[in-house]
Amino acid sequence: MSKVCIIGTTTWGITLGTIIAHKGREVMLWARTEDEAMLLSTQRRPADFLPENYHFPEFMNVTACLEEAVAGADMVLLAVPSQRMRPNIRLVAPLLTKSMLICSAAKGLEIGTAKRMSQVITDEISPDFAKNICVLSGPNLAMEILKGLPAVTVLAADTEKTAKKAAKLITAANFSAYTNTDIIGVELGGSLKNIIALGAGIVDGLNLGNNAKSALITRGLTEISALGAALGANPLTLSGLAGLGDLIATCSSNLSRNHFVGVELTKGRSLNDIMYNMSNVAEGVSTTAVAYEMARSMDLEMPVTENIYNVLYNNADPKEAARILMDAQATHELAGRKWNLFKMFRKRKARKTPELNPD
Amino acid sequence: MSKVCIIGTTTWGITLGTIIAHKGREVMLWARTEDEAMLLSTQRRPADFLPENYHFPEFMNVTACLEEAVAGADMVLLAVPSQRMRPNIRLVAPLLTKSMLICSAAKGLEIGTAKRMSQVITDEISPDFAKNICVLSGPNLAMEILKGLPAVTVLAADTEKTAKKAAKLITAANFSAYTNTDIIGVELGGSLKNIIALGAGIVDGLNLGNNAKSALITRGLTEISALGAALGANPLTLSGLAGLGDLIATCSSNLSRNHFVGVELTKGRSLNDIMYNMSNVAEGVSTTAVAYEMARSMDLEMPVTENIYNVLYNNADPKEAARILMDAQATHELAGRKWNLFKMFRKRKARKTPELNPD
Repeated sequence: MSKVCIIGTTTWGITLGTIIAHKGREVMLWARTEDEAMLLSTQRRPADFLPENYHFPEFMNVTACLEEAVAGADMVLLAVPSQRMRPNIRLVAPLLTKSMLICSAAKGLEIGTAKRMSQVITDEISPDFAKNICVLSGPNLAMEILKGLPAVTVLAADTEKTAKKAAKLITAANFSAYTNTDIIGVELGGSLKNIIALGAGIVDGLNLGNNAKSALITRGLTEISALGAALGANPLTLSGLAGLGDLIATCSSNLSRNHFVGVELTKGRSLNDIMYNMSNVAEGVSTTAVAYEMARSMDLEMPVTENIYNVLYNNADPKEAARILMDAQATHELAGRKWNLFKMFRKRKARKTPELNPD
Repeated sequence: MSKVCIIGTTTWGITLGTIIAHKGREVMLWARTEDEAMLLSTQRRPADFLPENYHFPEFMNVTACLEEAVAGADMVLLAVPSQRMRPNIRLVAPLLTKSMLICSAAKGLEIGTAKRMSQVITDEISPDFAKNICVLSGPNLAMEILKGLPAVTVLAADTEKTAKKAAKLITAANFSAYTNTDIIGVELGGSLKNIIALGAGIVDGLNLGNNAKSALITRGLTEISALGAALGANPLTLSGLAGLGDLIATCSSNLSRNHFVGVELTKGRSLNDIMYNMSNVAEGVSTTAVAYEMARSMDLEMPVTENIYNVLYNNADPKEAARILMDAQATHELAGRKWNLFKMFRKRKARKTPELNPD
């Protein structure tokens, strides 16, 4: 029987575990404390978890013993907040074996290093296991998946073979995994879309309508594709399920935490106040800061990101930010610049410097 | 004082006229009959028109006399259903002068010829005026615009100069027009997105959620971009406001007629029944048929379009069509094929055969 170890008792970790266990695979969820593990094992669900009638599937269990969680696993799946990836993989690293896939399901960039999660993992594990790293990302609102609604996702790894192996462990009846070898693109798609989701929340909070929101999403995609290409992503990945697909799902739904933060900002609440009262992390808040700094250091024009950054960190008025972005005189259709984007990508590829770390 | 003549007392025609007249330009709306002109002139609004407190702006008037409507206009703007474009431009053609811009605001393809609206117009007017043709398309839900919510649009013409001239006539405080010289792309974006909007309606009618809908939109865009490129459009136009932007707005909103048709189809109603009871035309129904035939004749794989076609015209079960499209085993991520798409576009450009008409 295949076994998957899930690091992170987050909503997303539990959701992925549930899908995998429903397929009849063994899932071992690692909880940070004995208390949490005991509580989850007894109640077979986290407190306040939605949907209300949710319970762990038969083959999903919880332990606070990391050795037990990891031992014999075909895949160690890390579903932790991005800023917690490094300490978690550091704990897991000594327990890894050559045959274990290491899969990141986090959608963010590390503050300070601007690194993607697979880079953080690479930093912390034996180089012998680097080829086992894969990432999972796509239009995957957890609550819909838990209700049994259909979704697709993307699994990327350095080789198609590794991606396929990982996809096989995860694909279920209502959760199909496409494979891809553009790890950079898949990770950046999942991370950078949260910036635009904050903007979509602002547009919705101001009741500006679907015309305005679709314009924001369209221009946002062009912009994050440009940054992605500069960082070595294939721009087409950003136009696929892990980029555009995830972007649309996140911007459409009030289930998204990043969208929620955007809405709350339009009510005059401070970012600190909003964040303080949230039980889950809104990755977009730190991703916006990281992306903004990267764009600056590379001299990339990113008006959407810049305006959202100013709302988050410089007390800019969300209404004024939205006004600037809807003004064709102040900005211009970015499509033309996309050609450069492909050039940027090809140039980076030719130079064989697939990524940039501003640290 | 500039003057714009609007052909078509459709919701979209009245909306565009309203924006333009609010800017202090003279707008003359042409009604097909004396009775309609009289009624609109007296009531200063169409019956049953939304929003309820709507009235024609001061500078917008109605006439049933085509000569009066067109005389001295800087632009003749045609906002008629696509299948009515040819008879309408045929009437207008003898009244055109060299200085008049001729702008299509219709989003569809002609049944039988598969022609875009600018091609239909070209067929019917003097070749001397062909350079005056422009098209308007973008994420523009009329009802939101009438409420004063911000929107952007795209104006395309053969030359940037003509596009800019047209954009200047139309741009208003809350309605910015970007310009573009890819008429083919802008027209195909506006037309083909309606196919995907029908699918989005089906997904919403079946309550499949935002994960499923965003996957459909993403794959739908790839597919219509491929058809667009084969027909001579710049694929980047399809990724811009007139493509992706319009696609997202239409798929997000229950204000869209095409989305409405999709929803109704999931209730087991027949297409004829749905169409019979609609006061406005759902362009996507005929566009799906035209696009399906074109894809077949060019041997282009278009699974989304094909499945929607089968629901519309071959009594296929919407539920089964959705199931097929969410199955990664039955299909595959189309991103890779986008490279070919750019090749297709460049090849067509090199051959200087910017369009294909299957008639």
